[in-house]
Amino acid sequence: MTADSPLVSLADLRAAAERIAGTCLRTPVVPLVAPDGRVPFAVKAEGLQPTGAFKLRGATNAVALLDDEQRRAGVVTHSSGNHAQAVAYAAHAAGVRATIVIPETAPAIKVAATRRWGAEIVMVAPSERHARAEKIAAETGAELIPPYDDARVIAGQGTVGLEVVEQVPDLGTVVVPVSGGGLVSGIAAAVKALRPDVRVVAVEPELAGDLAEGWAAGERRVWSVEDTSRTVADGLRTDSVGVLNWEHITAYVDDVVTVSEEEILAAVGVVVRGARLVVEPSGAVAAAAVLAGRVGGGAGTTVAIASGANIDPSLLAALVGTQDQTVV
Amino acid sequence: MTADSPLVSLADLRAAAERIAGTCLRTPVVPLVAPDGRVPFAVKAEGLQPTGAFKLRGATNAVALLDDEQRRAGVVTHSSGNHAQAVAYAAHAAGVRATIVIPETAPAIKVAATRRWGAEIVMVAPSERHARAEKIAAETGAELIPPYDDARVIAGQGTVGLEVVEQVPDLGTVVVPVSGGGLVSGIAAAVKALRPDVRVVAVEPELAGDLAEGWAAGERRVWSVEDTSRTVADGLRTDSVGVLNWEHITAYVDDVVTVSEEEILAAVGVVVRGARLVVEPSGAVAAAAVLAGRVGGGAGTTVAIASGANIDPSLLAALVGTQDQTVV
Repeated sequence: MTADSPLVSLADLRAAAERIAGTCLRTPVVPLVAPDGRVPFAVKAEGLQPTGAFKLRGATNAVALLDDEQRRAGVVTHSSGNHAQAVAYAAHAAGVRATIVIPETAPAIKVAATRRWGAEIVMVAPSERHARAEKIAAETGAELIPPYDDARVIAGQGTVGLEVVEQVPDLGTVVVPVSGGGLVSGIAAAVKALRPDVRVVAVEPELAGDLAEGWAAGERRVWSVEDTSRTVADGLRTDSVGVLNWEHITAYVDDVVTVSEEEILAAVGVVVRGARLVVEPSGAVAAAAVLAGRVGGGAGTTVAIASGANIDPSLLAALVGTQDQTVV
Repeated sequence: MTADSPLVSLADLRAAAERIAGTCLRTPVVPLVAPDGRVPFAVKAEGLQPTGAFKLRGATNAVALLDDEQRRAGVVTHSSGNHAQAVAYAAHAAGVRATIVIPETAPAIKVAATRRWGAEIVMVAPSERHARAEKIAAETGAELIPPYDDARVIAGQGTVGLEVVEQVPDLGTVVVPVSGGGLVSGIAAAVKALRPDVRVVAVEPELAGDLAEGWAAGERRVWSVEDTSRTVADGLRTDSVGVLNWEHITAYVDDVVTVSEEEILAAVGVVVRGARLVVEPSGAVAAAAVLAGRVGGGAGTTVAIASGANIDPSLLAALVGTQDQTVV
């Protein structure tokens, strides 16, 4: 990000990588091995982060950028998912107070997962969560850390892109799940800065395909949360990509594709069996697109970002035990 | 290994690390997060190796040490498990022929897993496998790569120890599963060379406790395969540790403990849920010992080696779905 451009720069990304090194894992790129021994693609295992998802990178970068006064006032965000856990963990690791505004409709298991990092939880009606978080920020001086529409967060998530370029010398295509667009914005900025020849493909569930519709139309689209909430990929139910994210996506992403619910669920089992990694439905969306042949071919290795692993154990058990071993 | 000592040296280990770098993954050390947010220990994720187990390290080192004549003749081994897949994969990666002698009693799924890397499979009666592998080596000039009682293999497995010392600056204890002893021999040699203050604890299933018995008696013990085959940890059913392995263990290991079958199965679920890694029963044995409080405390981080992830999907499903979330 410079005076001339709202887009995160390579310098922003590299600075973020230094800031998060002590808190976030440099996750491995793991080959996905088919039953016949072929390796159709690899997955980057973001589910191995201490909070089980890539979101920790952006939250850690944002917390690291607080000045002394902000550190004393703490941070606040609204989320019931992986971003909430990420902010709680990053704040805890930095010795900063965190307040997380959670909709009353959130599953108890997600509330508990956030509380365990010591954050203060404020339960509100779903429609009030944005306003309440902003009110807390205004009243207490706490710094609001948005889940995706934020340059600090985008730069943090983009460190995934720096790593994958280093880890896979013959990289050909990076496939990234999209909800609000923080991850794909950062990865695309990093990949295009270092390896403009590498393709970046964004993937959404069909049932939360606001970006795919906007990509086709040439303008950012907003869906209803009622519509996006139909997908099993509960990390990807945001109603639209963010404004700053749309800028990054249109500048850097090569293609946007969608996958069906059946493809997402099948991909969970394929990743668990083929790469020995736990993955949640949202984290299997990129792999699902490759498995469905929707990403296209081309030279070089394809890497699907397995963005998270916070899956209900009983759903995991059901998807792992299925007998379909089909891979690309 | 020098003229004066049969034990692998730090130079052997470092040379092995260079040889295997292009084929084996530098696996991450992943914190195991308890439901309340505490991190009682971490696991080193050897199941992420392309063949799903640490065995690839030793096999790759042994294949890399072949001279030109040996490369032309190929390699041979006898195994139905993770070592067979490792030799097949390492040979394939190096462009060398591999012949794997497999007992007729091996599950079809393991035979298929070995065949997929292009190895030639020779099925024999279980009692004939050693003799047949040696006969093939004598007749064809193929180099025999033993599963554990071999300095090349020990040095390869020991690269796990080099990595964990680098990855965990405050390392206090390394906990390692034992069958033939290749992994614990190499890790203990590496750890004691670099960090003599770090404890190395070896773990066996009670039902395959030949080393624990030998450790108490002060001499290497051999159990019957009928006895060791009772454990669910099918990678740890060897009848004894190797001769060279016994030398390493008595020189470098601090303690040997055992775990029950129930503790092993419970630990699979804890590792999958707490570290988001697939793990097979053999790979959960070290974690089981920590969870059972059998490793002892002391300063520094405890790292359990999660040695492999080749688990039947239906067993994985059964163990993941259980509701016991108890962690240390």
